[in-house]
Amino acid sequence: MSVTAAQGFTAAGIAAGIKENGNPDLALVVNTGPRRAAAGVFTANRVKAAPVLWSEQVLKSGQVSAVVLNSGGANACTGPKGFQDAHATAEKAAEVLGRGAIEVAVCSTGLIGLLLPMDKLLPGVETAAAQLSEHGGEKAAIAIKTTDTVHKTSVVAKDGWTVGGMAKGAGMLAPGLATMLVVLTTDADLENDVLDKALRAATRTTFDRVDSDGCMSTNDTVLLLASGAAGVTPGYEEFAEAVRQVCDDLGQQLIRDAEGASKDIKVEVINAATEDDAVEVGRSIARNNLLKCAIHGEDPNWGRVLSAIGTTRAAFEPDRLNVAINGVWVCKNGGVGEDRDKVDMRYREVHVVADLAAGSETATIWTNDLTADYVHENSAYSS
Amino acid sequence: MSVTAAQGFTAAGIAAGIKENGNPDLALVVNTGPRRAAAGVFTANRVKAAPVLWSEQVLKSGQVSAVVLNSGGANACTGPKGFQDAHATAEKAAEVLGRGAIEVAVCSTGLIGLLLPMDKLLPGVETAAAQLSEHGGEKAAIAIKTTDTVHKTSVVAKDGWTVGGMAKGAGMLAPGLATMLVVLTTDADLENDVLDKALRAATRTTFDRVDSDGCMSTNDTVLLLASGAAGVTPGYEEFAEAVRQVCDDLGQQLIRDAEGASKDIKVEVINAATEDDAVEVGRSIARNNLLKCAIHGEDPNWGRVLSAIGTTRAAFEPDRLNVAINGVWVCKNGGVGEDRDKVDMRYREVHVVADLAAGSETATIWTNDLTADYVHENSAYSS
Repeated sequence: MSVTAAQGFTAAGIAAGIKENGNPDLALVVNTGPRRAAAGVFTANRVKAAPVLWSEQVLKSGQVSAVVLNSGGANACTGPKGFQDAHATAEKAAEVLGRGAIEVAVCSTGLIGLLLPMDKLLPGVETAAAQLSEHGGEKAAIAIKTTDTVHKTSVVAKDGWTVGGMAKGAGMLAPGLATMLVVLTTDADLENDVLDKALRAATRTTFDRVDSDGCMSTNDTVLLLASGAAGVTPGYEEFAEAVRQVCDDLGQQLIRDAEGASKDIKVEVINAATEDDAVEVGRSIARNNLLKCAIHGEDPNWGRVLSAIGTTRAAFEPDRLNVAINGVWVCKNGGVGEDRDKVDMRYREVHVVADLAAGSETATIWTNDLTADYVHENSAYSS
Repeated sequence: MSVTAAQGFTAAGIAAGIKENGNPDLALVVNTGPRRAAAGVFTANRVKAAPVLWSEQVLKSGQVSAVVLNSGGANACTGPKGFQDAHATAEKAAEVLGRGAIEVAVCSTGLIGLLLPMDKLLPGVETAAAQLSEHGGEKAAIAIKTTDTVHKTSVVAKDGWTVGGMAKGAGMLAPGLATMLVVLTTDADLENDVLDKALRAATRTTFDRVDSDGCMSTNDTVLLLASGAAGVTPGYEEFAEAVRQVCDDLGQQLIRDAEGASKDIKVEVINAATEDDAVEVGRSIARNNLLKCAIHGEDPNWGRVLSAIGTTRAAFEPDRLNVAINGVWVCKNGGVGEDRDKVDMRYREVHVVADLAAGSETATIWTNDLTADYVHENSAYSS
């Protein structure tokens, strides 16, 4: 399934030796056409990794024939040599596949500040190319894992066409976009501008609203490739919704696999004056370390929700705020509401609703709790 | 010492029974004059606790005769009843001291969303008033502790006049201001406007640049009271510097006692285009959970510094950024610099320098590492 669920794509995932532990670390996704349309969304971080800078150029060229992805090294903050390495990776794939290098996107993930072992990566591209298969999507998804405990794939099959995809990401997850690499594929027959519109609309309300730890990566990339192999051109709305569903599903999988997390937290802001207000408030709540600790301890500490709301510029009156945790309105009109002992927080998913009583707009941000395991995983070794 | 180091002040700290464990929980600080000038700075959180709303009114009245402070409950998000309670506390102190209620500031700290036990607090005010002493500063500082492991006091004695103070704060420490209550006193003979100018100048570069966990409180208050008892009017610059020194010292004590911390981190941003840029970058670095975990693990992970810088709007070019950790320039020109193995991180203080190479402005933000103990302390019980 994964990136090979749609017709017109082959993929492979191999162990090239980039990771010292010998785990799979190189994936190759190839669009066999007939069309090679594509769209991409990249990290908003101003410190961008070399493969991001390269792939942005590739997207401008108008078509994407292949994507090379490696784990085991982010190739970020690696200077001119890092950019040359990203370029050389594309050149190698282009040579093996008989395409132009400017049609080959490159994605990397891993530790920042290390040059990639090109003596292993380039032969790895050849090995991966030799193993390309219409059933290779699963292996590709496995090869891009870093601290992920599971690989993530998703497929929406429609009438005669399909959108599928794979994602990696477990830490440094924050909007614009989460530390993650995502490749989506479709066999629908669509132009670049339609792909771009649908992809931006989808990521804006899915990946951009997944905020595990407030830390924005240097390498985030989401690519959408269209082969046209199904020979079907769906209507925009139907296609955009399918892309959104796959993005939403992959985003949820990222949160569920967030480093050290024991709770998945859905922060829903309602009755905001504007959608921007709702997103700002949702993000402020989702990034509040004290609240994330409280939820870890199964403590419905709504005071920490209010103190997070209070740091924003959103329209609200403090004495009209309401907060529900798992369905119990523990804060009403800015003060004590229903009995907090009624809140049952034993389950993994926790639902926080913040009612701003200032309008009718809404937004949902997903995050997770802050745990000792998160601290351990991010302090015990470099990642 | 503490708030009674300056002449013209008495103080007391007692156990009124607000805290269930019987620890001291009520402090009273009285300005015995002859002057009762004052200035105050309050939390920038838009969700303000009742005592903050009350004390803001008191400061507008022009003079402050006394401050009642309690731990064991924040009286935040407590609605009209909470405000009435803050007012009743001031009324009681005014009655006992023979002053007007509008001259009595009130500060509270503890759990948000609980009404204070007024049946214990009001008799406590009488008890504290009976114990007022020119040597009571230490006891007052002890009575305002919550999760603080030590009480915090500071004194700067100048030629014929003194500035002293006390502070509490250990968590929910973030700019504008940290979760903290601070009372500063001086026997210098100064007008309100001079006190206000000196206090705002001091807090802007001290408490406002202490950021333990990015969480802004509903109760932060810093008060500066002047008795004029020394009969000396120092020059503005000398006075402002003394206030700054006391604020800086107390701010450092807050960071050193931050919940669960094992490292104190000095984030120094240099060569910024503007001071605002330097502060924004410093705060972004100081709030990066991944970096804070890395420093906990004694890992000089400069990539996380760059990814934090990249999320700001500050002026910089990615390939001109330099980062030093404990004196070793581990990142030069946006890439790998000196050998990271040279970085010695065994000691409690860690010094991160981020060189933006974009100007000549600088700012320093203090924070601490993120530890499993922080998670435990903020998840195991409500605070």
